[in-house]
Amino acid sequence: MLQYESQPLDRAFHALADPNRRAMVERLSRGPASVSELAKPLPMTLSAVAQHLKVLEEAGLVRSGKEGRVRTCFLEAEAMAQVERWIVERKRFWEQQYDQLEAYLTQPPPIGEG
Amino acid sequence: MLQYESQPLDRAFHALADPNRRAMVERLSRGPASVSELAKPLPMTLSAVAQHLKVLEEAGLVRSGKEGRVRTCFLEAEAMAQVERWIVERKRFWEQQYDQLEAYLTQPPPIGEG
Repeated sequence: MLQYESQPLDRAFHALADPNRRAMVERLSRGPASVSELAKPLPMTLSAVAQHLKVLEEAGLVRSGKEGRVRTCFLEAEAMAQVERWIVERKRFWEQQYDQLEAYLTQPPPIGEG
Repeated sequence: MLQYESQPLDRAFHALADPNRRAMVERLSRGPASVSELAKPLPMTLSAVAQHLKVLEEAGLVRSGKEGRVRTCFLEAEAMAQVERWIVERKRFWEQQYDQLEAYLTQPPPIGEG
């Protein structure tokens, strides 16, 4: 059951584990771009870019649409937000731990000690 | 150069792309745990858990220390924070885009039109 529920997160984290795919997401976070605009700064063939794009689309992080001969790509904010939520949720817990540790370390010593 | 700089993020995202490793991080976000405590809820052998732990340690997300026969694992908040920062930085840009779009859609029509 866990497997089924976590698949979108698996795919999103996997997609973001590659520096070229992260570069594409960075570019798209600044606005939509055509495939050739995405490819321009990357040290790879257009066909390699298309492969990376496929991974990003399958992960739900990017969608694209074709108008005439130009395919334009957009960032899917919701999939990115899902990744963010997972991190932030974990952070909530580990920050609570730090707060407890800090409270413990800064509490005055019990009367009779120190 | 990009490759070298982005390696820690590559490893962190890769490590988080597996639901069992995310379950281990979830457990550790609630406090340190021994390897057998980590393994208990997971449908796998202790040796498989050790393999996943290795991936998490190599990604800098978890560290562990041995006292006697017990190995205790801790979450490395800084590596998690680095992943969070990457997402939040992207979000800042795509939210600006939405704000601009919203401002455009809600602006009054120019005088003489509408």
